[in-house]
Amino acid sequence: MPTDMSLTSDDAEKFLLAAKRAEIQALERLVGSCELATTVSDLVHQLQRERGISNIYLVSAGFRFSGQRQQQIRNCAASEAAFRRLLHHRYLQSTRSDSPQNMRLLNSIAYSLHGLDELANLRRHVDAFEVSALESTDAFCRLIAGLLSVVFEAADVADDPEVTRLLVALFNFMQAKEFSGQERAWGAIGFAGSRFDEKLHERLAQLQDCQRRSLELFAEFAGETELARWRAVEDCQESRDLQRLRGVIAGLKDGEPIAAEISEVWYELATARIDAMHRLEDAMAARLLQVSRQRVAESQSELGHHYAQLQRMKSTGWTRPPALAVLFDPEVPGLYGSTPDTMVTPLPGQHLAHSLYDLIRSQVAHIHRVSEELEQTRRALTERKRVERAKGILMRRLRLTEEDAYRTMQTRAMEMNLKLADVAEKILQIGSGERSASDGVSDSASSTSEKQTVEAGKAGA
Amino acid sequence: MPTDMSLTSDDAEKFLLAAKRAEIQALERLVGSCELATTVSDLVHQLQRERGISNIYLVSAGFRFSGQRQQQIRNCAASEAAFRRLLHHRYLQSTRSDSPQNMRLLNSIAYSLHGLDELANLRRHVDAFEVSALESTDAFCRLIAGLLSVVFEAADVADDPEVTRLLVALFNFMQAKEFSGQERAWGAIGFAGSRFDEKLHERLAQLQDCQRRSLELFAEFAGETELARWRAVEDCQESRDLQRLRGVIAGLKDGEPIAAEISEVWYELATARIDAMHRLEDAMAARLLQVSRQRVAESQSELGHHYAQLQRMKSTGWTRPPALAVLFDPEVPGLYGSTPDTMVTPLPGQHLAHSLYDLIRSQVAHIHRVSEELEQTRRALTERKRVERAKGILMRRLRLTEEDAYRTMQTRAMEMNLKLADVAEKILQIGSGERSASDGVSDSASSTSEKQTVEAGKAGA
Repeated sequence: MPTDMSLTSDDAEKFLLAAKRAEIQALERLVGSCELATTVSDLVHQLQRERGISNIYLVSAGFRFSGQRQQQIRNCAASEAAFRRLLHHRYLQSTRSDSPQNMRLLNSIAYSLHGLDELANLRRHVDAFEVSALESTDAFCRLIAGLLSVVFEAADVADDPEVTRLLVALFNFMQAKEFSGQERAWGAIGFAGSRFDEKLHERLAQLQDCQRRSLELFAEFAGETELARWRAVEDCQESRDLQRLRGVIAGLKDGEPIAAEISEVWYELATARIDAMHRLEDAMAARLLQVSRQRVAESQSELGHHYAQLQRMKSTGWTRPPALAVLFDPEVPGLYGSTPDTMVTPLPGQHLAHSLYDLIRSQVAHIHRVSEELEQTRRALTERKRVERAKGILMRRLRLTEEDAYRTMQTRAMEMNLKLADVAEKILQIGSGERSASDGVSDSASSTSEKQTVEAGKAGA
Repeated sequence: MPTDMSLTSDDAEKFLLAAKRAEIQALERLVGSCELATTVSDLVHQLQRERGISNIYLVSAGFRFSGQRQQQIRNCAASEAAFRRLLHHRYLQSTRSDSPQNMRLLNSIAYSLHGLDELANLRRHVDAFEVSALESTDAFCRLIAGLLSVVFEAADVADDPEVTRLLVALFNFMQAKEFSGQERAWGAIGFAGSRFDEKLHERLAQLQDCQRRSLELFAEFAGETELARWRAVEDCQESRDLQRLRGVIAGLKDGEPIAAEISEVWYELATARIDAMHRLEDAMAARLLQVSRQRVAESQSELGHHYAQLQRMKSTGWTRPPALAVLFDPEVPGLYGSTPDTMVTPLPGQHLAHSLYDLIRSQVAHIHRVSEELEQTRRALTERKRVERAKGILMRRLRLTEEDAYRTMQTRAMEMNLKLADVAEKILQIGSGERSASDGVSDSASSTSEKQTVEAGKAGA
């Protein structure tokens, strides 16, 4: 009792086209995520500046940087307004409300917006000198961490391999830049107190390590263009001067007095490097937008091509031959063990070059290629997350610093001839019993690629 | 220049709710996938029956099973109609056309529909005895493989941990049942020819291995209820009789004549087992629907709870205190290294039990928990895929059978004290250069969880 053929054949076509449209929709969402990442990158940069300026304002009891601070608050407001405009346009407008969004991304946005809502209050506390420079810095860091988590989620839910790589590269670069900002802040605190004690030396060294690891991840996922630009930043005079100054600071003995002018040089060099990083960030963001929009355009053109092909087939008298191509295609495995020697010869004349079957085949191949590439990218990400989680467990259990926990895993990996991710998994397996008890509060100092999720996660753990 | 507070606070709320709604949408899509898997499970079962009946019809030159075949074609048509109705309702109705769908799932549906469209032609070839029993079996197997790939894709794109586990369990169980069906078919071919040669013995043994491995995966992901039911199937008289008969067949020498009545016993026992498997499949499908619908209901009730909480906060004079909770929350890491000894004391009165911040925190925790669980499930899936791909490379390169390729990897894993998935990855790394050249045609005999993707993928490779 076969169903009506012309009707049924239509279904397969509809689903072929629906699949392509689903890809276009997903890529359009991805363009939205990329726009979001771009806007967040600018807002974070402005907040990092306000953080630094506010510190100097607080430390100088309001004598310095009062005007700059007001100007920078205006810059932040402008960036924040752009961020909110984009959010309204992309995610809250009624015409788009039906379009699919990702829960994790939306929730990280809610978290960031809530932090931004409290910024006005924080500023009032700064105005009234009701917070210390350290407290203010801490608050800005939390706000920025929330915003970075938006970029992290955007990268984590992206489903195009190249865009995912670029987003992961951008996220890790932003993370490295934030660690640079925190290094600048601790340096400033040291200079303000005119001494660098052991703890401060250790923190600076660790923040430099954190930057290095984030930059390694950036390098793993970035394209050649970005890498070349980054090497140029590293090779410029300011970066080399900063590197030298780091050495000078590291050589200072506990409590050794420091010339005031070094403080200014420190701030200027660190700022020059951070600004150079921001320019590279902008270039990456621009490329991200370009690549993601290009993906949409390519996919739309493929859809157009599908339509044209289907029309052409119909106009040239194609109804729905070539009969049985799919069911007798010897390239598609059928009965297990019906290997070539027992294989049926395909009925003749089935392989017209432009059948519906060919279109479906080509789309299957396209999906297969994209999925495989994406899986490889994701695997690298997943392994990184695993290493971060295992590090957190070691830090908690053995009361190690982040750096020591990392080195312990590295040593063990070399001894056991395993990958770092495998050592991490063993630790996670052993540690999984203990987890539920302490519920994640422990990974506090975790600070590389997963930091943002851990942070966001901790807010509710 | 802080922006207007009442406005901004509203944004965070909106995104909190949008995130929950996004989760509900995703879960509703998942219900759709589960309904689809259920319908496919029924259609596959009917096609498996038609495959068996058509063989007997062909082998007997139309003297046997002519009426049964017409009846079974009607059963298939009814199942196919239900499948197409669901597809139209879920995926092609204009009111839903905006709702997000997954490209891979839609494309696997297009592929299956195209196969179903050719079924009428295949039946005409059977009517006219223009195909052999082996060719017909092969064609039915391809059609069924396409339909199984729909269930595989549904499992692969699911984003709820429990539903994913159930879908993976169902897929592997369906896969095992299909291998049982193929084993029954090869057995029937052996009996029809009145001899079991070496090749046939080998195929039967391999199909039994394939069933075992699919059932292992089923057991890894299934719940206790399903496992208990499966053990009951395995322990019943028919299963034990079938197991004995397998032994008898395996003991037959090449060309040794077989009593005709054994053929009937074989068919009946194999069919009894397959029917028992189908009943368990039905039970799993029912549970899948129940669990996925329950998820939607839970999520909707959480959304209602969010609304009620927000209303209550507003009515009790809550505007947007507690100020600075998020920016001064000591549980959220801020500045790197500002560990407890330098940690600011949170400003007092910030932790009202029911603030917007608490709602965001609880949602963050929920997402964190779900993501982590899902990642663990996915990891098991990903590792399986890697093993399958590596097996394909070994089969191609060393010209091994599937079974031997698998054993080679197992031995190597034991020797190197590595996990099977790690050995697979090493093979993939070495083999990645060679891949593009032969382009996947090789994994032809691949036969466990990834088989369906490989098959679908191959159609276009």
